[in-house]
Amino acid sequence: MGEAMKAERLVRVKKFGGTSVGSIERIEDVAKRVLESQKAGESPVLVVSAMSGETNRLVGLAETVNPGYRGVAYDMLLASGEQVSISLLAMAIERLGGKAKPFLAHQLGIYTDSMFSKAKITKIDSSRILKEVEEGVIPIVAGFQGMDSNFNVTTLGRGGSDTTAVALAAALEADACEIFTDVPAVFSADPRLVPKAREISRLSFEEMVEMASLGSKVLHIRSVEIAAKYGVKLHVRSTFEKREGTWVLMEDDMMENPVVTAVTHDASTAVIKLFPMPDGTSVLAELFEMLSKKGIVVDIITQSHKEDKQRLAFSIPNEEIRPTLSLVSEFLSEAEAEVIEDVAKISIVGVGMRNHPGVAAQFFRTLADFDIPIHLVTTSEIKVSAVIDSKHLDRAANGLHTAFGLDV
Amino acid sequence: MGEAMKAERLVRVKKFGGTSVGSIERIEDVAKRVLESQKAGESPVLVVSAMSGETNRLVGLAETVNPGYRGVAYDMLLASGEQVSISLLAMAIERLGGKAKPFLAHQLGIYTDSMFSKAKITKIDSSRILKEVEEGVIPIVAGFQGMDSNFNVTTLGRGGSDTTAVALAAALEADACEIFTDVPAVFSADPRLVPKAREISRLSFEEMVEMASLGSKVLHIRSVEIAAKYGVKLHVRSTFEKREGTWVLMEDDMMENPVVTAVTHDASTAVIKLFPMPDGTSVLAELFEMLSKKGIVVDIITQSHKEDKQRLAFSIPNEEIRPTLSLVSEFLSEAEAEVIEDVAKISIVGVGMRNHPGVAAQFFRTLADFDIPIHLVTTSEIKVSAVIDSKHLDRAANGLHTAFGLDV
Repeated sequence: MGEAMKAERLVRVKKFGGTSVGSIERIEDVAKRVLESQKAGESPVLVVSAMSGETNRLVGLAETVNPGYRGVAYDMLLASGEQVSISLLAMAIERLGGKAKPFLAHQLGIYTDSMFSKAKITKIDSSRILKEVEEGVIPIVAGFQGMDSNFNVTTLGRGGSDTTAVALAAALEADACEIFTDVPAVFSADPRLVPKAREISRLSFEEMVEMASLGSKVLHIRSVEIAAKYGVKLHVRSTFEKREGTWVLMEDDMMENPVVTAVTHDASTAVIKLFPMPDGTSVLAELFEMLSKKGIVVDIITQSHKEDKQRLAFSIPNEEIRPTLSLVSEFLSEAEAEVIEDVAKISIVGVGMRNHPGVAAQFFRTLADFDIPIHLVTTSEIKVSAVIDSKHLDRAANGLHTAFGLDV
Repeated sequence: MGEAMKAERLVRVKKFGGTSVGSIERIEDVAKRVLESQKAGESPVLVVSAMSGETNRLVGLAETVNPGYRGVAYDMLLASGEQVSISLLAMAIERLGGKAKPFLAHQLGIYTDSMFSKAKITKIDSSRILKEVEEGVIPIVAGFQGMDSNFNVTTLGRGGSDTTAVALAAALEADACEIFTDVPAVFSADPRLVPKAREISRLSFEEMVEMASLGSKVLHIRSVEIAAKYGVKLHVRSTFEKREGTWVLMEDDMMENPVVTAVTHDASTAVIKLFPMPDGTSVLAELFEMLSKKGIVVDIITQSHKEDKQRLAFSIPNEEIRPTLSLVSEFLSEAEAEVIEDVAKISIVGVGMRNHPGVAAQFFRTLADFDIPIHLVTTSEIKVSAVIDSKHLDRAANGLHTAFGLDV
């Protein structure tokens, strides 16, 4: 499609999260805002989450009926929340004189793999939605859900509506994907933890991926990965204000690269220590393969020796402690497992690090100045992360934010 | 399929209404009961309604967002209720050690026409469900919903889950279709109105169709029509008791044919009177064609003359007054419309009437004895109906029940 055609039909995917459609009044506000954007010349395509609280209500019902159950029925249950919100939003737009139509994943051919509750989108058929757009209809797509090759309903995991939106924007070659949310932008740190945190106006995909994987809750990590892969411009902005928020773009499109862009943290971390590990070169590969098959994402891994025996430590999300321990006790019956729960991960992220040696040193120096011991540490080209005791998190986050010149 | 094969795999479609799955405890009770029937040698196929109150909650949301709206979004909204109940019931069965899988209409190929909110099932693909049954899985099908040829979600109207169940039983050539409900059987009259009403053990399809169309709420009329067409034996019985309820069967299978089987009533009736009607032979055809296209079911119709002009009167369901009047005022701008709202329809039904002349006379005699005036009247081979003032309904129902020997 030529640039001229694209300009003629400015397709914008707009994703509205649960709080944005959390009540009838808010649904009506979204309807108005979307119709205004259509009048201004855009062709909006909406992706909507369940009304806030609804997914938790459904999870509560499931936990009462069959605690811990996961599978076909669980995903189908959870997917009902979005069915309600897209229908109501369509009716609200119609009432205001617009044309709108709600779509479930299967109606649009949003295909995923069969990893229930954590499914990945594999294909989107954009033809049907483009047809609606050409007829002036505002398509409203249920976020968070998909369909596997056996026509089962699947869900993409918490925050999965972001991923639906970006994948759709990629399939439609949309001009941009706007993520409307209850915060006005991405911040240089969580403002609840770091009062001097400031709004970031531009971020690179790489930085956003790191931030999402390091604990920032603003965007679902998979959505940023897809945006990066297909070059979908992301715009994180407020549902309740008109002003611009944070653009997430290719690095080339950016104006400046500060050394460190943000301090992020993840309070829901745990460390598992295993000792003594059995000998043999394949044991680590097998262990982490098994964890990965269960969908458990292992973060930092370190290995050390004690009395000629191998010792292994790795960090995982808090909620994966139980499944991890049960798998470990089965596979490594002789190793003793120690769980450290009161820990948090603190990180600095920035593409500018690449050209500035000594950033890691400054990170460690700052923590040392505050007398904060480090359990585990990992670095990449554009980030430095450390697992520390939770009680030090506040001082570490504010100290690093100041040390790297991020304070307002 | 031969009789031997059928006996080997005794497929029973079991429909559970909203009150039967109205709470987590009730869902668990249904799960237990179904697993018991499977252990006893049946192959259960379940059809489930939304949890009681849920459909009303969704209708309330729709009315707040866009009062009176009907269409794609409305049906999609309402269909979400069944998605929740089938998922929860599947999880409950799995927890008890059974194998169960929830199915939405589109996953099974339950096709309908595109008459939103009143859609009719046109085709069911039974192959997928039979495959599950053969593997010992209990399929749990969302009642009330379907899919049209454009993949839109459709709904079948209130009580539509009965229709899903019977259509599925026909497609599967099931041994029987059990309708589990909050009453133990079909009664000879509504026990809330007629205290001496008694349970009916056997009914013919024809009688049940008449009763459903005349106000009995126990079964959705369309479901009985389909059962009659395909010879599906229906069994209306209690969710909370084990004993048998009412069998609805072919007339040939029945033991006895009392002259009158039941007294039914419909309190939600209205009469529309139009005068003067324009001349011309096609005006009535056109009027009723238009009403039918809007899905408005006109019941009793009478025509009379006054001062050389035609006068028309017909009865409709209460909730259709507004759309009927708006259509009438457009099409017959010169006729004055009078609406009588405080009326009810009272009827007697029985296949035995065919061989007993004088039943209609006895019906009129009974009402006359009570000094009850009749607005409209209609008869068929197996029923007599009259529209009377609502205030007389109680006396009429009890009087007819006694007069035709139905009292306990």
